[in-house]
Amino acid sequence: MVNKIEHIGIAVKNLNESSIIYEKILGVRSYKKEEVSSENVITEFFKIGNSKIELLQATNEDSAIAKFLDKKGEGLHHIAFEVDDIYKEIERLKSEGFKMINETPKLGADNKLICFVHPKSTNGVLIEICQEII
Amino acid sequence: MVNKIEHIGIAVKNLNESSIIYEKILGVRSYKKEEVSSENVITEFFKIGNSKIELLQATNEDSAIAKFLDKKGEGLHHIAFEVDDIYKEIERLKSEGFKMINETPKLGADNKLICFVHPKSTNGVLIEICQEII
Repeated sequence: MVNKIEHIGIAVKNLNESSIIYEKILGVRSYKKEEVSSENVITEFFKIGNSKIELLQATNEDSAIAKFLDKKGEGLHHIAFEVDDIYKEIERLKSEGFKMINETPKLGADNKLICFVHPKSTNGVLIEICQEII
Repeated sequence: MVNKIEHIGIAVKNLNESSIIYEKILGVRSYKKEEVSSENVITEFFKIGNSKIELLQATNEDSAIAKFLDKKGEGLHHIAFEVDDIYKEIERLKSEGFKMINETPKLGADNKLICFVHPKSTNGVLIEICQEII
């Protein structure tokens, strides 16, 4: 059971330039910039209502974001849904027939446990499931 | 000034099949199915927190969704931000240097006035600005 859209991830080439663009669109400044070494990305977050926009820039060529930019260019990368219990949600999604990229949650940006559902089972949409670490 | 993420639009080939997939992912049933003749689409909506997921299927080849599917395949199509005054917001975005696809709001799905910002000025992201019609 999904609580809300936690954030939308947008793949960008240059975080500094894109951050200025999204400040102008959204009318708010970013509240956090964070490097996630395990994912080879730097991220920047903007609050919008009770959701967020996450800009993602690759830090090296091994990053999933670098591969996405090569293949598709800048743009919408993923949607993240917040759940109360990520372990239970992974089991629920598997039992519904969804293919998980991660069957065990990993540490993501912004103090979250995260996992991804494979886009092949969700109409080409990369879906992140996340739970706040308390 | 943006209030919230009103919805995320996802382009799909077959609304009936995708609707079943998103019911399973989100754990809720869709609350509305609506044809928007002017846009050549059928849409289906799911409530998630105070935002929505909108699935979009083309009704003919002239549809922007048909062109998107041909070029990029199924997947994330646009983000919609809710504003209080769409006319004021269009003027604000133009004054900030953004290129609008529509400089005058048009009638969209789900009882909204809508307009789109050109993805060239927003890192490849198609952004919809919308206001509820009261």
